[in-house]
Amino acid sequence: MADINAPTVVAEITALHDAYERALAANDVPALNAFFWDSPHVVRFGVAEHLYGAEAVALYRHGSSPEFTERTLLRRTILTFGTETASVMCELKQSIHQRTRHTRQSQQWVRFPSIGWKIVSAHVSHALNPPGLNPAWDDYVDHTAAAIGLPIERSFRSGVVQQLQRTAALAAPLLAFTLPADVEAAPVFTA
Amino acid sequence: MADINAPTVVAEITALHDAYERALAANDVPALNAFFWDSPHVVRFGVAEHLYGAEAVALYRHGSSPEFTERTLLRRTILTFGTETASVMCELKQSIHQRTRHTRQSQQWVRFPSIGWKIVSAHVSHALNPPGLNPAWDDYVDHTAAAIGLPIERSFRSGVVQQLQRTAALAAPLLAFTLPADVEAAPVFTA
Repeated sequence: MADINAPTVVAEITALHDAYERALAANDVPALNAFFWDSPHVVRFGVAEHLYGAEAVALYRHGSSPEFTERTLLRRTILTFGTETASVMCELKQSIHQRTRHTRQSQQWVRFPSIGWKIVSAHVSHALNPPGLNPAWDDYVDHTAAAIGLPIERSFRSGVVQQLQRTAALAAPLLAFTLPADVEAAPVFTA
Repeated sequence: MADINAPTVVAEITALHDAYERALAANDVPALNAFFWDSPHVVRFGVAEHLYGAEAVALYRHGSSPEFTERTLLRRTILTFGTETASVMCELKQSIHQRTRHTRQSQQWVRFPSIGWKIVSAHVSHALNPPGLNPAWDDYVDHTAAAIGLPIERSFRSGVVQQLQRTAALAAPLLAFTLPADVEAAPVFTA
């Protein structure tokens, strides 16, 4: 197994993903197509579409223009193995038709000797609201922070959201446990 | 660049993904956890959650049980590079709380010398209805096929959906083109 997250490789993928996001913001279709491997093996799942092969991806790009505004990267994890394999996992916030969306983008990159790094598969989706919580966690954090007058520094925000999600996951089995009807409350002794 | 889709490697990943789906159906949490790389680098985006690190993934599995029924694999693309890198991209149909969902699952697998193939990143989401079309393409195909009495063989169904999506993508730029008010209809000559 080759090096995990070698700094030079992570830097290459970081620069490529930054460039991809710039091309997306500019709706630069030729640039966007060039990031993808030109192969029938490419698969891209968009929020509503399932595209098989580079031709289908290019056709989709040609026929649609992104409708997002205020697209902000919330968190990005780049994971590289050796010098030929990388994964990019992002959380983004963006506004689409006046609706704030928590969007997730994942890309698998492979480096080819002749053509360099290319996206071989990609998946984009909007997060569903977590079960039992509406609005979504990040909106919940924003609204609660505003309501109690507690500003959350931008760099801490995704950590706060994660912490809430973990707490909810910890609480779930406790909340799911049904107390028997004949259970006795523990006695309380007072002085 | 090593072999793409070497049959033995594709067979390994196919068997692993089949086993993963069986573990999911059985809600076999230890088995599900064992498919993931036991590392803080692991990232899993679920339909509503964003899990960073194997510990967070395990905690989530512990605190939740899948609520799907009638889970059916519609299409699966396995793409392997050499003997250490693979991508699995699936479309699935499942029923969650009486609602039919078109679900997409993507996994990146890496083979480690000591522990074998592990999932290093994963992304699960429900497809949004495509813009301008409601219900989703696959429901549209099912309903239309039923309405016109045209049975679609199961193995052809995803091809029919793809073809409709491509046709819509081709039509989009034509539909978006506004005819000038002073355009003249082409003359029609009749004998």
